[in-house]
Amino acid sequence: MTTASQSANWLRTNTSAGNYLGALESWVSLQSQYPSVLYSIVDLHSITQSQDPALLRVNILDMAAGLWHRPRDNNPLPIQSQVSEHAELSWVLGCFISMTRLRHLPQWKMKSKQKNEGRVGLYTCRLQIDLARIFNNTYGDLFPEPPALLSSTRKVKSLRDPSSKMSKSDPQKMATVNLTDSPDDIVLKRICRTITDFTSKVTFDPEACPGVSNLVLMHAEETVGQAKGLDTGKYKLVAEAVVQRLTPIREEIERLRGDRGHLERLLAQGAHRTRELAAPILKEVRHRVGFC
Amino acid sequence: MTTASQSANWLRTNTSAGNYLGALESWVSLQSQYPSVLYSIVDLHSITQSQDPALLRVNILDMAAGLWHRPRDNNPLPIQSQVSEHAELSWVLGCFISMTRLRHLPQWKMKSKQKNEGRVGLYTCRLQIDLARIFNNTYGDLFPEPPALLSSTRKVKSLRDPSSKMSKSDPQKMATVNLTDSPDDIVLKRICRTITDFTSKVTFDPEACPGVSNLVLMHAEETVGQAKGLDTGKYKLVAEAVVQRLTPIREEIERLRGDRGHLERLLAQGAHRTRELAAPILKEVRHRVGFC
Repeated sequence: MTTASQSANWLRTNTSAGNYLGALESWVSLQSQYPSVLYSIVDLHSITQSQDPALLRVNILDMAAGLWHRPRDNNPLPIQSQVSEHAELSWVLGCFISMTRLRHLPQWKMKSKQKNEGRVGLYTCRLQIDLARIFNNTYGDLFPEPPALLSSTRKVKSLRDPSSKMSKSDPQKMATVNLTDSPDDIVLKRICRTITDFTSKVTFDPEACPGVSNLVLMHAEETVGQAKGLDTGKYKLVAEAVVQRLTPIREEIERLRGDRGHLERLLAQGAHRTRELAAPILKEVRHRVGFC
Repeated sequence: MTTASQSANWLRTNTSAGNYLGALESWVSLQSQYPSVLYSIVDLHSITQSQDPALLRVNILDMAAGLWHRPRDNNPLPIQSQVSEHAELSWVLGCFISMTRLRHLPQWKMKSKQKNEGRVGLYTCRLQIDLARIFNNTYGDLFPEPPALLSSTRKVKSLRDPSSKMSKSDPQKMATVNLTDSPDDIVLKRICRTITDFTSKVTFDPEACPGVSNLVLMHAEETVGQAKGLDTGKYKLVAEAVVQRLTPIREEIERLRGDRGHLERLLAQGAHRTRELAAPILKEVRHRVGFC
């Protein structure tokens, strides 16, 4: 659920390093924890808010490139709208929940308060667990109830205000490391000017020292141990670690972006393989509800 | 719009002669008025209310048989759920209308008052004109605004209570002529026991004499002229006319129902041809909203 929602947000903005370090990486690493992991680029979800069509298209491909820069154990990466079973199942399941019930879901209340006025699509994309339960109760077990992985994402913060998330849409350009920033930009303009809580001690204490803790978070876990005892001046070696980490990613993303045809072929493959998984489920759903 | 809604109602009940005479026939005749007519059996729409799966399946096939009993000028007859573009487009268009706006549509207000509590699916299936307009305004003209054909349907009434519609779900069995009733049943048990307004004069005055007017409606237009001057006792020759009209329909429906495989092949053909029409539209929609 969070995954879909975050992915939709990213499609509205370009991918930032905050996004990447915060979640893309943990998604990639989930692939080693589960035998089969299937991430979807949720373009259908993204249009529950206004989108600039040209930007959306670029962001979809960038996101695909971002997810593909590392070997993905051959897991498919479908774009939601290319797997028609998503929309078909969404209609069927939407017919099993009442508007009254939907309006009382805490997720919807929160979201509609934020946005002032909900789109119809938004109503219908936040209820997987409820819908799985209702369908199973009516027609017999079919859908496993999806477990939430809400806390699996590290939250990288703004470099200018560690109380808010790092986001490409931040009006302060210095607040964000972008995946496509050059190494010099990262070292000189971003991390070396980070807000560090008026302390020079390296510590991981998100409450008391959110700025430093944010740098620690950005630093790969394996190098944090070595950095203990350094003062924050020297801790700017985070910049080096970030550069080191982002450079191959950036280069691979640039390479993939440069070959849009290749990217589109990979996505079409992902959609094809995902449809093979989805088709028998939808067939069973159709049979159970009484379609021919 | 009316068409979709009526079709959904029929999928909930077996097809009655009231349904058939009232609308199926006028649909069939529309085929001679337009160069291309495409009727859809709206199973996706039908599940906005509770359905018995086994009955729904039978009713879908019966409805197809009912529509096919006459030469259909080779127009395809798709089942909505077999054309995935329906659900896909429905999602996209649902993202362009706010819940607030939807709640204020008169159709929705009326429907949700009747049913007490609306399903999410119901919210999203009554707004073609609005949605066409919103999409066209945002992304440039693509969808023609569908004209309503609200009054093209003759309303055949219950034989026991001419103030309500003839419906298979009527608890009074005598109120309804079913397409599959035997000639004897139609003559002896139904029409000869019709409520006829305590008058023996044949007249078409739906306000003052709804029962007799209902018989007149059921009688084919071409025989009404000949029937003028008869009294309603003799007017029971309506029974003969109804039998005459329903017999070949009933026989053809029985024949089609007996060959389910043939019916399913015809429907699959209809879905295939309809997808050929729908695919380029959906492709254009995808492009305009910014999908890859």
